[in-house]
Amino acid sequence: MTKSIKAWAATGPGKPFERFSYDPGPLKADEVEIQVEYCGLCHSDLSMWQNEWGLSTYPLVPGHEVVGRIVACGGEVRGLADGQRVGLGWFARSCMHCAQCMAGDHHLCPAAEATIVGRHGGFAERVRCHWAWAVPLPEALPSSSSGPLFCGGITVFSPLMELGVRPVDRAGVVGIGGLGHLALQYLRAWGCDVTAFTSHAGKASDLESLGAHRVVASTDERALTDMTGSLDLLLVATSAPLDWPRFLTTLAPRGQLHFVGAVLEPLNIGAFSLIAGQKSVSGSPFGRISTLRHMLDFSKRHNVAPIVEHFPMSRVNDALDHLRSGKARYRIVLDPDF
Amino acid sequence: MTKSIKAWAATGPGKPFERFSYDPGPLKADEVEIQVEYCGLCHSDLSMWQNEWGLSTYPLVPGHEVVGRIVACGGEVRGLADGQRVGLGWFARSCMHCAQCMAGDHHLCPAAEATIVGRHGGFAERVRCHWAWAVPLPEALPSSSSGPLFCGGITVFSPLMELGVRPVDRAGVVGIGGLGHLALQYLRAWGCDVTAFTSHAGKASDLESLGAHRVVASTDERALTDMTGSLDLLLVATSAPLDWPRFLTTLAPRGQLHFVGAVLEPLNIGAFSLIAGQKSVSGSPFGRISTLRHMLDFSKRHNVAPIVEHFPMSRVNDALDHLRSGKARYRIVLDPDF
Repeated sequence: MTKSIKAWAATGPGKPFERFSYDPGPLKADEVEIQVEYCGLCHSDLSMWQNEWGLSTYPLVPGHEVVGRIVACGGEVRGLADGQRVGLGWFARSCMHCAQCMAGDHHLCPAAEATIVGRHGGFAERVRCHWAWAVPLPEALPSSSSGPLFCGGITVFSPLMELGVRPVDRAGVVGIGGLGHLALQYLRAWGCDVTAFTSHAGKASDLESLGAHRVVASTDERALTDMTGSLDLLLVATSAPLDWPRFLTTLAPRGQLHFVGAVLEPLNIGAFSLIAGQKSVSGSPFGRISTLRHMLDFSKRHNVAPIVEHFPMSRVNDALDHLRSGKARYRIVLDPDF
Repeated sequence: MTKSIKAWAATGPGKPFERFSYDPGPLKADEVEIQVEYCGLCHSDLSMWQNEWGLSTYPLVPGHEVVGRIVACGGEVRGLADGQRVGLGWFARSCMHCAQCMAGDHHLCPAAEATIVGRHGGFAERVRCHWAWAVPLPEALPSSSSGPLFCGGITVFSPLMELGVRPVDRAGVVGIGGLGHLALQYLRAWGCDVTAFTSHAGKASDLESLGAHRVVASTDERALTDMTGSLDLLLVATSAPLDWPRFLTTLAPRGQLHFVGAVLEPLNIGAFSLIAGQKSVSGSPFGRISTLRHMLDFSKRHNVAPIVEHFPMSRVNDALDHLRSGKARYRIVLDPDF
């Protein structure tokens, strides 16, 4: 399997995507190669395309919400076989032996490699990863819409596990896009009381159908005041610079403000506002491999599914425009058409 | 017990303490009155004296690290008796019926009353509180040095319980004063690897004898760099505005930066620095009543004891000067001499 891989790549920050092909070299013994059937388009692809985080190398082939079938396995691959349907998300490799990997925290491995950082991702015919990060997709989940579970889904599901969220908790989701619309579904299925905070008040009935018990405009001062001290969890799934000290006031004692959206501005939070109500501010990237498996199983059992819009991969530039304009409802999936 | 109580009070922000007496009125049915035998001098007393938090009313009688004996019990008091030796800390009353109180989080009760906010505290002959906050002092613990356990002690012990600190963890304490010198002892007894961060490098051998495995100057860039990614917990027991984003880099994945010192300046922390390593920033006030009891028991079992300097209460102004000058090693206790 050393034949070249056709892909879509940007040659520089923000430059249009063009056809590109590369020679992946010999397959490593611990890697699988996946034939991409579908690949979600995540906000992180946009950030990487524009080199917002200073991590990008060009030509850049984004794409880290892959669903596809294994077409080749290296000799050391465990638990997978040719033809198997798997998903691949943000991470493509972990060292497998550091303290984090040994503790099941492969996503916190200091040497972890992201699928699209220094590697070529899923806007392509095929993509490779370490076997541990190719996670089997349960049969009941459809290939065409499950790609976004492998980044958007796990990113919002992981905090429910990590933060000890309980079904009796009152939770808010700030920002209802690709991540947020999944967070509403997971929190509702988890048994929580769910509030959606959004800048698009027009979406209210949509968001209720996704699981929100109520919908609040993120800048509605009066509504925020009414919620003072009421929430156990605020899950921030936007990169917009909102008034975080204000949002902290909506938290009950022991409340947690948790970021999965890459807000770049400093949070400007005072220690006092944390001390008085024993509150915390935290963040998490992606999730554990074991949590990925739980997430897929939970999604199946509770019919949690990304709402997706499909574009042929050859229209990746149109798809990016659609995402940037804020019109995606809620996640774009690209269908390879090489 | 409606006879007047002699005390030391400030008549305005930062004004010298003067002799003062007040009529406490009839004892409430759910209150006890405690004859003050010793009262610690906490940094919060200093903050309240100067009205730094905008909560002070004058004449102000500070003092919330009381050890003494019960001299009167209201008719509804449970589990206590006249003559019993108890301690009283930051809180003097909780509502006993809200969600927090019912969950054992009396310290997070929205209606909780602090011993020195809108009430008169322990720089006095006697002081009153709701029975739930008068916590029996185990026999083995000496009255003369145990007052500081009831605020300084519980404040640094509570995070060990609340944050799930494990004996295998690597912990740092930032700021080694009244709180920090107890944090070192608790963390060492808890089984952790302990690093003391201090602005007084001269204290190194003292801090090692208190439990630190190593001592690092808080502004030593090279030492901070050497510790990159190594700590599971940083317990901040100073109100100094240090470089918190820098300290975050010393945390391992899943690391927790926890404030018990009332840092007033915004923390200036970025969401990204939390997301990447799944880190958190949190704070806590005081602790649960049940944790107070655990703390006393643990202190007894592990010989954790405040190191104190005694002043007669009539020299309260000198004691305050001593504290403000940063010379206290490590906690001042006032002995009533009315």
